[in-house]
Amino acid sequence: MWEILVRKQWNTISILGVGLIGGSIGAAICQRKIAKKVVGIGRSAARLRQAKKIGAVTSTTTQLERGVAEADLVIVCTPSDHVAEHVLRVSQVCAPNTLITDAGSVKDEIVSQVERTIGSQACFIGSHPLAGSEKTGCQFSDADLLVDRVVVVTPTRRTDQHQLAEIEKFWQLLGAQVIRMTPAAHDRTLATTSHLPHVVASALAAATPAHDLPCTATGWRDTTRIAAGDAELWRQILLGNRRHVLKSLDRFEKVLNSIRQAIEQDHGGQLRKTLATGKKIRDLVAD
Amino acid sequence: MWEILVRKQWNTISILGVGLIGGSIGAAICQRKIAKKVVGIGRSAARLRQAKKIGAVTSTTTQLERGVAEADLVIVCTPSDHVAEHVLRVSQVCAPNTLITDAGSVKDEIVSQVERTIGSQACFIGSHPLAGSEKTGCQFSDADLLVDRVVVVTPTRRTDQHQLAEIEKFWQLLGAQVIRMTPAAHDRTLATTSHLPHVVASALAAATPAHDLPCTATGWRDTTRIAAGDAELWRQILLGNRRHVLKSLDRFEKVLNSIRQAIEQDHGGQLRKTLATGKKIRDLVAD
Repeated sequence: MWEILVRKQWNTISILGVGLIGGSIGAAICQRKIAKKVVGIGRSAARLRQAKKIGAVTSTTTQLERGVAEADLVIVCTPSDHVAEHVLRVSQVCAPNTLITDAGSVKDEIVSQVERTIGSQACFIGSHPLAGSEKTGCQFSDADLLVDRVVVVTPTRRTDQHQLAEIEKFWQLLGAQVIRMTPAAHDRTLATTSHLPHVVASALAAATPAHDLPCTATGWRDTTRIAAGDAELWRQILLGNRRHVLKSLDRFEKVLNSIRQAIEQDHGGQLRKTLATGKKIRDLVAD
Repeated sequence: MWEILVRKQWNTISILGVGLIGGSIGAAICQRKIAKKVVGIGRSAARLRQAKKIGAVTSTTTQLERGVAEADLVIVCTPSDHVAEHVLRVSQVCAPNTLITDAGSVKDEIVSQVERTIGSQACFIGSHPLAGSEKTGCQFSDADLLVDRVVVVTPTRRTDQHQLAEIEKFWQLLGAQVIRMTPAAHDRTLATTSHLPHVVASALAAATPAHDLPCTATGWRDTTRIAAGDAELWRQILLGNRRHVLKSLDRFEKVLNSIRQAIEQDHGGQLRKTLATGKKIRDLVAD
């Protein structure tokens, strides 16, 4: 077998969108010296200045064409709804050998839309770092955000294996563990492990009267923490993955209903059984 | 106004049931020197030895009568279903001026049952420390478990005001903030802030296929953390507060259904509005 040679350092990596995720990726690249230059690209000069100040990028620009001109790798970290459009815009102005990836939470729509449109000279491979926070903004950037976290990469039949290896190596250099999935499998899985929890946490928070909040403790706080996430970002994610989210919701409601029935009918054995199933699954995961 | 004088140190406090809560309360009493003696009472000699070893109690016994003989205060920290029975047994063997409280998660049934039966010589005031963990056992005891946490005390018309002040002062000495509620108001509120989150977290964990777990991140983990709690303890709590839990569940399902409809109908405005309501409520609470 030939081993695919992948680089350990890049010349220039450009990041489009320097929010929490883009800022954290940039800070990790800078701290770990994974690229000589890290270019932050965005619309807000103030936000770009802040990203540079906190060491998330080495230079900044509000002009896309200038920002990607020298890039070996462009990472699109804009909100879900805009990723495909931004990838396509990058692909039109970057050099032919530039790799493009993203950090979007929904993959099938993005990857399909890009692959339908993108020219054969540019290469896009979808990525989704499974890390984040209910906080937004590059002031919350964390160079260790991806350490020991999973990044899902979503190659297709069109993906070049060498370029795939480059992207996977890149995420590994940031401390992440890479899982390879098809875009559809990603969306099906993340509907359950990320999008449904957001729906449930939001509903739980929204169903809590404000006057009951003094009697919340760590249980309510843990269970609702992600409800503090940005409503517009999550609107995009949930609608971008509608079909799978609704299927996961069906499965959740079925279990919830069996708990309801057990409580209504004072059926302790059935209730304990369902609670024990939940505990068994939760115990498979650390903290 | 006369100020009610309350003691800053007790001679002997006895703890019936030295699990996570009993052990943590005992450790806090010992560390803060709130009582000269802390007697651990339980059925398992091994568990009592462990409690003494970790500094949660100063002496131990498996005999209830001996354990409460000199107690100024007895704290019943046994599982919810057994609290009323244990309080009554303590009241039959303790000295006439002994105060009794508990740490049960459901109050109306416990307090009613005790007040229906207890003799006028003994005094019971219900308490519920809003702290805990998905972990069980006194090896996870934490002397700071109640620091900056809420303890709800649930006096009734029969409660002596001086004794109420003593109990409230006791919890405050452990670092807690005391909220006074009727037993019924406690159960109505906690159904929403504690029992419903457990139902939701358990259903979410139980609805997650094990093969999807590698793609969970902090969102799923936070939202399901309490599902790792003991199934039998939570069966008792949920059935002990059935009526209020079902009402809270109704309210949750109403919100969940509005999110489902918004996703089904691709109604972004409605979806964002509900998510924003959840965020607004969650943002009212720190971390």
